[in-house]
This record gives sequence, structure tokens and C-alpha cells, in this order.
Amino acid sequence: MLTKSHIKLITSLNQKKFRQQHQLFVVEGIKGIQEFLNSHYELYQLFSTEPIFNAEIIQISEQELQKISSLKTPNTAVAVFKIPKTSNGTFDGLVLALDDVRDPGNLGTIIRLCDWFGIRHLICSKATVDCYNSKVVQATMGSLTRVEVQYLDLKSFIEVSTIDVFGTFMDGQNIYNESLPEEGIIIMGNEANGISEAIEQLVTTKLSIPRFGDLKATESLNVATATAIVLNEFKRHSTEM
Amino acid sequence: MLTKSHIKLITSLNQKKFRQQHQLFVVEGIKGIQEFLNSHYELYQLFSTEPIFNAEIIQISEQELQKISSLKTPNTAVAVFKIPKTSNGTFDGLVLALDDVRDPGNLGTIIRLCDWFGIRHLICSKATVDCYNSKVVQATMGSLTRVEVQYLDLKSFIEVSTIDVFGTFMDGQNIYNESLPEEGIIIMGNEANGISEAIEQLVTTKLSIPRFGDLKATESLNVATATAIVLNEFKRHSTEM
Repeated sequence: MLTKSHIKLITSLNQKKFRQQHQLFVVEGIKGIQEFLNSHYELYQLFSTEPIFNAEIIQISEQELQKISSLKTPNTAVAVFKIPKTSNGTFDGLVLALDDVRDPGNLGTIIRLCDWFGIRHLICSKATVDCYNSKVVQATMGSLTRVEVQYLDLKSFIEVSTIDVFGTFMDGQNIYNESLPEEGIIIMGNEANGISEAIEQLVTTKLSIPRFGDLKATESLNVATATAIVLNEFKRHSTEM
Repeated sequence: MLTKSHIKLITSLNQKKFRQQHQLFVVEGIKGIQEFLNSHYELYQLFSTEPIFNAEIIQISEQELQKISSLKTPNTAVAVFKIPKTSNGTFDGLVLALDDVRDPGNLGTIIRLCDWFGIRHLICSKATVDCYNSKVVQATMGSLTRVEVQYLDLKSFIEVSTIDVFGTFMDGQNIYNESLPEEGIIIMGNEANGISEAIEQLVTTKLSIPRFGDLKATESLNVATATAIVLNEFKRHSTEM
């Protein structure tokens, strides 16, 4: 049975401060819930209009589902999972770092890209949108279960690291002609302002994605599509024949 | 002065059938309007709370702006432009073709990518979201003024074309190892279903974007990020040293 305290908890998790306070977040939809159940994430509560996954559920009515879902057309089940502790381990290989990416859809798409390209560590500046925001969780399509996301003071993190730091700029070196290593930190910037000045000073190699066509009037690429191109460039070398 | 018929026209343009009937569409925000004014697009009506661009405006109040804007926080001006006639010319170079892309944000991002990579012709199947949808226009950030978008019967278009047809599939040839031409039709598919069977049969070269990492559990890339990677792969060859 759905109680008032269930409703209060779930709706509070729409806000970052309550997600952090309770260390819980919401996943909606059977497919997404299944991905998290099959991962290292720990289930806290599962609400469903019908029995699923042979799991212990709190059975709810369609009307009750409407009350706790943040979707326009809810999808039979809502789950609450525990936010996992992040490791303190060292990072190896390529690390992607986001300097204040604000759009939940962009962060979700970037987490999917990390998963696709085998990037296991995603570092986010503290002003980057929270990866447990429900729109981000939806947009990751389960990839959040396979990519470790950590929120850090980005400047301090880069300052103490000893590997090369890459970032894309309009006036950087043509990324097609650079020899790109298998280890490094790749910085992607904010949607409106790009990479901040404080972080730009720590970049050891400035890259740019060439622009084509006669006009070259496009001001910028969307941060998620630029991330796709940059990760593709770094990884394609490792399969070249 | 804003009249009832102005309001009726502008709000009707939220619907594709009225955009097609009137051959008009809406652009909001100073920056976007400026991009269209500086292009081959022809202005129909410009509504603004203050004089702008030394243009003939219909002056409106803040309250009137609220009535005609589709944005939560309207941006001083709303313009109505004429939908241009598309050319019947032949296509050359690389042509991107979309097989039922439905999300306005994805189409907007793809139009920006075409602009960036110098792809002048974007072909859309008739079920692809309308490029004059206000969310698409916003997402293109002005790139719609530099890329010609045509809605056609995609199957017939490909059947009569004589150039190679490329598409990405999970079981295609590794795109990194293929020699990619400077001329061809590149098909990108629907968000949920990919490229349809009817179109798949017309593809002459099946490509795939390699997946990395130990798990390789990501099911797919978002269509806009996949488009970014594919266009980057086709174009990077033309600058290789």
C-alpha cells in the first residue's frame, strides 16, 4: 500500500538536496529498473501496479502511480535506489571531465557515450547537473550503471593529476592531426560559455574539431555531439590497422 | 498593435498543418531572428516590445508578447518568416537522409551538425519531425538558414539515385577501416527502431561504429551523437595529410 510518507519521500527526491540527504534516487519504467537491478546498485523500494521481476514490490493502483511518477505517461513501476559510494581509487586510461554542463539531456547523452566508448570514469565539476536527476537517469538508458560519475572540485582534481589535459577550443590544434594518447583527462565545457578560464589555464593540449563548408558560420557544436566526436577521435586510434 | 488575427495566426503556427497551409513559421528571440534576417529567408511579420534591427515592427507590450510566445520566458521579439521553396536541383557531395527521426531536439542538433560539416542537403522522410517546428528552429541555433531541408518519399528518392547509400547497423563494417567517398547518401534511422526494413534493402554499404570497453552493453547511441560520429568519419578523410 502506498502511504503518505512514501509519496512524500518519492516526490522529495525530485530535488537534489533531498537526494543527497537521503542518498536515494528514482528510476522509472520497467526497462530502466531492470538495468539497475542487474547492476551493483542496491534497491531501496519498488512500487508497481503488477508483480514484476519476482521482486518484493509495494503494490499500487494506477491512480497511486500517477501521484509518484514524474512522467506524463507513467510506465507501471517506480523504483527508489540507493546512491552508491564512489571509489577513492586512482583513475586510469581516459577520464572525461565536465566543466559545468547544465542540461540533463546533455549529461545523460554524455554518460551513454562514456559507456559506448569504454570510459569508466566521468568527473563532474560541482556545478554540473546532478546525474541522479530523473531526466538524466532516463536519458542514460541504463548506462549510469556502468559509468562511475564523481562530483569534485575540478580545478583541484586537475592540479594534482600528472597526466595530460585536453580540451576543445575554436583556436586549438586540428584534432585529426594530433597523436592522441590512451591516457589523459578530456575536458568538455559549459553549453553557453565553454571551458572556464580557470580550467583553460590547466589544459596542456588545446584541440579543435575542424569545421567544413564554404560559410563556416556555425558558432559551435552542442556539447554532447562535440563529446561524441572527441571520444571517437581518441578511441579510433586504438583499433587502427 | 497586436490584433486578434495576429494572435490567431501565430498560435496556429504551432501546428504543422497550419504552417503548411500558410507557408509560414515562427522564430523567437533576437539572436535567432537576426540569423534569419541575414539569410535568404523572407520576413513576414516582426513583433517586438522595442525597436530592433531598424526593421518595420509591430510594437507589442510585455503582456501581448506572453500571448504569442511559446517560451516560458519570452525574449522581447517574435518573428514570422515565410517557408522558402526548396530547389529541384540535383544533389552533389554528401547528402544526409533521415528515416523517421521524431524528436525535435535531435533534428535541430542534426541540422547544426550538417552546417558544421558543410552538408548542404538534408533529406527527411515524410514521417520525420517538421524542421519548422518551433523546438527544432530553436535547437538549430540559426543553422537552418544554411542547410536545405527537403521532405520526400525517402524510398523513391534513394531508388532513383545512382550514388552509394550508407547506413549504420550493429553488424556493419567497422567505419574506421572503410574508405569513405566524398559523395554518397548517408541514412540515419528512427530513435527507437533504427533504419526501416524497406530502406535497409537499398543500403549499399552497411557501417558500424565500434563499441569499446569490457562490457559492451550499451544498446545504441543517440541518433544525433551517432550522426556526429558518422559525419566526422566521412569528412576527416578530406583533411588527412
